[in-house]
Amino acid sequence: MTFEEQEKQRIEQNNFMDREDDFYRQFSDLDDVVYSESAISKKHKELIGHAISITTRCNECISYHIGTCLDNKASKEEILEAVKIGVIAGGSITYPNARFAFSILQEIGAL
Amino acid sequence: MTFEEQEKQRIEQNNFMDREDDFYRQFSDLDDVVYSESAISKKHKELIGHAISITTRCNECISYHIGTCLDNKASKEEILEAVKIGVIAGGSITYPNARFAFSILQEIGAL
Amino acid sequence: MTFEEQEKQRIEQNNFMDREDDFYRQFSDLDDVVYSESAISKKHKELIGHAISITTRCNECISYHIGTCLDNKASKEEILEAVKIGVIAGGSITYPNARFAFSILQEIGAL
Amino acid sequence: MTFEEQEKQRIEQNNFMDREDDFYRQFSDLDDVVYSESAISKKHKELIGHAISITTRCNECISYHIGTCLDNKASKEEILEAVKIGVIAGGSITYPNARFAFSILQEIGAL
Amino acid sequence: MTFEEQEKQRIEQNNFMDREDDFYRQFSDLDDVVYSESAISKKHKELIGHAISITTRCNECISYHIGTCLDNKASKEEILEAVKIGVIAGGSITYPNARFAFSILQEIGAL
Amino acid sequence: MTFEEQEKQRIEQNNFMDREDDFYRQFSDLDDVVYSESAISKKHKELIGHAISITTRCNECISYHIGTCLDNKASKEEILEAVKIGVIAGGSITYPNARFAFSILQEIGAL
Repeated sequence: MTFEEQEKQRIEQNNFMDREDDFYRQFSDLDDVVYSESAISKKHKELIGHAISITTRCNECISYHIGTCLDNKASKEEILEAVKIGVIAGGSITYPNARFAFSILQEIGAL
Repeated sequence: MTFEEQEKQRIEQNNFMDREDDFYRQFSDLDDVVYSESAISKKHKELIGHAISITTRCNECISYHIGTCLDNKASKEEILEAVKIGVIAGGSITYPNARFAFSILQEIGAL
Repeated sequence: MTFEEQEKQRIEQNNFMDREDDFYRQFSDLDDVVYSESAISKKHKELIGHAISITTRCNECISYHIGTCLDNKASKEEILEAVKIGVIAGGSITYPNARFAFSILQEIGAL
Repeated sequence: MTFEEQEKQRIEQNNFMDREDDFYRQFSDLDDVVYSESAISKKHKELIGHAISITTRCNECISYHIGTCLDNKASKEEILEAVKIGVIAGGSITYPNARFAFSILQEIGAL
Repeated sequence: MTFEEQEKQRIEQNNFMDREDDFYRQFSDLDDVVYSESAISKKHKELIGHAISITTRCNECISYHIGTCLDNKASKEEILEAVKIGVIAGGSITYPNARFAFSILQEIGAL
Repeated sequence: MTFEEQEKQRIEQNNFMDREDDFYRQFSDLDDVVYSESAISKKHKELIGHAISITTRCNECISYHIGTCLDNKASKEEILEAVKIGVIAGGSITYPNARFAFSILQEIGAL
């Protein structure tokens, strides 16, 4: 599945869950507030989310945050630095996820 | 143990490990490079480290990163926003660590 | 792979492991005892297992427990409530697994 | 610190966080909705939360859920069965948390 | 609490749990079989358990496995190498647990 | 994807990352030192890495360490014992990864 197909599938499934149960809409609204521009800029919040995705080894989260990092004008360099912070925090067991992040960046032409 | 005593103990033990085995010095040097000012500022890198500490539920890491966030001129507001990003990512099982972060901030007079 | 094919593969591989090494049969027997009807009903134990699968982000465990929840007459509503308990405990990094649970329920016609 | 002192400290700190930042009140409200009586009874939801606390190795969560399990008329037998589901799911690395659960139950006279 | 007091408390609580519920005796028996001398020597199995304890960040497990490593004639050098394997696998968030392992080894005079 | 194709892809991506950013070369060099023959033999270090991969539920790490275990003359029996140590430590949520380890061993004709 391509990055774009994954993104489409994620959005469709999130929408389905929001319609099925108000909980998901509320959780997602709370997530939106946490990630909104404030004392920390939205771009830097997305970089934080990206690094957390690496350390917690969540590939779908990595795809998502690479998208939101780019949408918020994070540079390739910033995205790659966040990956490294995730790797040094989470160790060699995060290598598969770092490789995944690089493969996404290659696929979308950012590397 | 106070925040300062914890900090003192951590530094002493890290120094002991560095002397005992070169591995710890090399790992720590690599960590320093990852966290150095670059495309992402040092302040924002420390905020990333702080949020990771919440999501991964590591209290000693939280203490450490609150210190380094403050050393790098992160505001109280920024530190608290990083905590929230950590909590929304890691869920209610991170609440004990969010409480710990607040208690450290209270202890050192930042709240 | 469909839900049924996954189930078939899991059972075959578990059987292979049981034949190869007695440890897996003993671990599995112990698991059966823990999950047997007792002070907590088998149905509620499977719902517990399902929620744990969400929080620990284990998709194969989610597939397995959706099957055992349904086998033990858990309703769609109960299964979905267990998912939410898993998500609020484990945070946004469990969203991919909640989406997976919904996709399994859609595939088998429970949603 | 006794079980009661821990409970008091947790409530005070949660209240402080709720006053300091609306996020914590909203997250906590959402948590309350997820844990409210519905298709799954409140008692069984607290047992689920308790088992998750064992598998995710969160001692403060264990203390909290033992309290809420008892408040919702869970029996000693049910609480102990939830611990076992947590242990078989999470393995021997959850033994320290199972011991902690037993020590809390001993302290409050439930064992 | 000293290393010896911790060991005493752990054994007492494990015994209490074994008496309270047969599950713990059976799980513990299975654990004993897995850790018994076989294709991999008992000493090397305890070193494996020790490294897992570091990566999974379980201090009580670290205490336990330092004891069993020493009981099975593992050298100080072997124990410290297992710590490093745990740290490189689990990253900087395992540093508090590496420090803990060093502090135990200092306390019992192995360093 | 076959075991060999996975291995090829992993090496290519690691090489790409090493060329892109010196951090990955340095982390990997440090990993090589930790895993080199010393007080613990290289074979036993790879078995440790393999068991950690099971407990931390990292399938790409499992593939990698099965390869390195075999390269360092670990027997089928030793590799399977390391899997069991990983499973008893990490519990039933590691079963999917134990099944994966068995499937790799079947694929390459070691079982």
